[in-house]
Amino acid sequence: MFKPKITFNPGPSQIAPHTIQAIHEVADSGILSISHRSPEMTVLGREALENTRKSLRIPEDFVILLQASATMAMDTILRNVVQKKSFHFVNGAFSERFYQTSLGIGHEAEQFVSDWSKPISWREAQVPADTELLAVTHIETSTGTIWPTEELEELRTEYAEPLIAMDLTSSLGGIHIPWHCADIFFSSVQKCMGLPSGMALLIVNPRSLNKAKTVHGSLAAWQDFSVMEDKIKNYQTLETPNMFLLALLGKVMANWDMDYVDACTREKAKILFEQDFPWQSYQKDSLWVAPTVGNFTVEDTEMWHKWARDAGYLIGKGYGKLRSECIRIANFPSVQLDDLQSLLNALMVHVNQQEAL
Amino acid sequence: MFKPKITFNPGPSQIAPHTIQAIHEVADSGILSISHRSPEMTVLGREALENTRKSLRIPEDFVILLQASATMAMDTILRNVVQKKSFHFVNGAFSERFYQTSLGIGHEAEQFVSDWSKPISWREAQVPADTELLAVTHIETSTGTIWPTEELEELRTEYAEPLIAMDLTSSLGGIHIPWHCADIFFSSVQKCMGLPSGMALLIVNPRSLNKAKTVHGSLAAWQDFSVMEDKIKNYQTLETPNMFLLALLGKVMANWDMDYVDACTREKAKILFEQDFPWQSYQKDSLWVAPTVGNFTVEDTEMWHKWARDAGYLIGKGYGKLRSECIRIANFPSVQLDDLQSLLNALMVHVNQQEAL
Repeated sequence: MFKPKITFNPGPSQIAPHTIQAIHEVADSGILSISHRSPEMTVLGREALENTRKSLRIPEDFVILLQASATMAMDTILRNVVQKKSFHFVNGAFSERFYQTSLGIGHEAEQFVSDWSKPISWREAQVPADTELLAVTHIETSTGTIWPTEELEELRTEYAEPLIAMDLTSSLGGIHIPWHCADIFFSSVQKCMGLPSGMALLIVNPRSLNKAKTVHGSLAAWQDFSVMEDKIKNYQTLETPNMFLLALLGKVMANWDMDYVDACTREKAKILFEQDFPWQSYQKDSLWVAPTVGNFTVEDTEMWHKWARDAGYLIGKGYGKLRSECIRIANFPSVQLDDLQSLLNALMVHVNQQEAL
Repeated sequence: MFKPKITFNPGPSQIAPHTIQAIHEVADSGILSISHRSPEMTVLGREALENTRKSLRIPEDFVILLQASATMAMDTILRNVVQKKSFHFVNGAFSERFYQTSLGIGHEAEQFVSDWSKPISWREAQVPADTELLAVTHIETSTGTIWPTEELEELRTEYAEPLIAMDLTSSLGGIHIPWHCADIFFSSVQKCMGLPSGMALLIVNPRSLNKAKTVHGSLAAWQDFSVMEDKIKNYQTLETPNMFLLALLGKVMANWDMDYVDACTREKAKILFEQDFPWQSYQKDSLWVAPTVGNFTVEDTEMWHKWARDAGYLIGKGYGKLRSECIRIANFPSVQLDDLQSLLNALMVHVNQQEAL
């Protein structure tokens, strides 16, 4: 089994040494044996969620709910705030999944499909007037595309009526989030937040909670916004929560300096995307290139994987249909500037050798 | 914050020292940073699920699926195998939750409510002929009641046509499971299996998978038996799974001797239930008393909690409406005979003192 020094695969993220240390502390703390209905649990949950709110700058009136995955969060959102119609801007595998989830639930979902490698020409979309939810994917992990904040602001202005749900997987914790541009946000914790997989955050504003009260669909209590909101007031959940990841979240978020992390992400992205390598960003418009996931078109993907592996690093494959034409290099916060530089230096040696031939 | 030496609260379980050790190993192994689509993940998943199958004696043709909680498993089951009608034998809070989940989804659910403290008089139930799923709770954690295997066998014979789903929370991993008595089984891992919370196993036989193919409801891919079965063949899931708990499951199940554990559970139960204490088993019929969860009616619950706490132990409160009349003492595998004996000795001192007054 290949055991890389550092993984640049875009999720699950490399787990940082301080997070490994936090796992050891959680294991030894006795917290994993407490009752999920105890005052100790409330302390644990409060620390986790309020540290998260503070560090990630989540607005005070937004409610933070717990999910087991971003995929589950899509389902929960769609069951709570859509009676009939959702509309999806699809530019990759995860925005496609959100759309398919809506169809599976039984909604009248519509999609506006963009060329995955180009800006989303959302102004051309014909959004039905009775659309209840617009779904956008802030950063498409599968393609390395980000919605620029200016575009999101215009989208919000253009569509003031429907709720907007934004998939923050591959952005939450890595860069500042434009909280003013949508109503519902969700992200798993194993990307930019650098935690082990198995949990997602679902963040909803009061308007979404109000809308949910008017929707009557196929929805049981554990997934019902009103029940979830009621429980989370005491930092609890209807089902027994993932106490390990909740404890870990509290510890990691306690020391998360979002300004610093955002600056690091952008500095590393600059270095990554300005390499003079024989690769091209799959996303052609630089304004739409995601800073946290490099997705590069290369001639021989296997060669790049081998170059990285020979230096002890793992880089990511292209997603799905892009597997044979792209490689991906995650620029998540747990990957340090030095690590990135080492990877790029190792690749550079091979690139230079090849050019010398 | 009270930090007990040992918790006898019926879930989350005390985490055993060897499980704490396994957490440290998982943290240091690098496994948490592997890709969930890699060959390494397949190795990890195979080890976890096949160790589980072997140790818990799960029949070869049953498929083991992963869920985030037993509550979620109820939802997944009901969406997959019920088009219209489920029927629930309700004798506590969790069988009630299964019933309510079915109503929430939109099914025509019916319940047969039993006195929580008595055997389930299931022969008196009027089960509609077109019932698709019968739901039973093997051990009701809220009341300390178990369905005796003989009763389950008769139930199975009486109702050969509908599928039977059995909630194994508080039994799976603690005692041998009557796999021949139902079609669908589920349990979270933080009770008898002694792992941290955040995962549940959903175990289904071929008949259930076939039935699921004929049901068309409000169901997205991530929760769809056919998609889940397809993914789990490669020990993967559609969403990123909880790799931490999966790795831990593999390690803990590798050394789980079910015959030994079953014998220990019964030996400890004998000691627990034969105490000459001023308490009465809430379940009146000894055949229906669950060996893994002692639920005792006492005069002054707070006094018992204090007695336990003074000795460094935590015992459980009565569940929900039983909070002021019952105490619960979990008899999960991670609680050793010595621990139980120490708790009982400590309580005995107070009982004797009081009787001497």
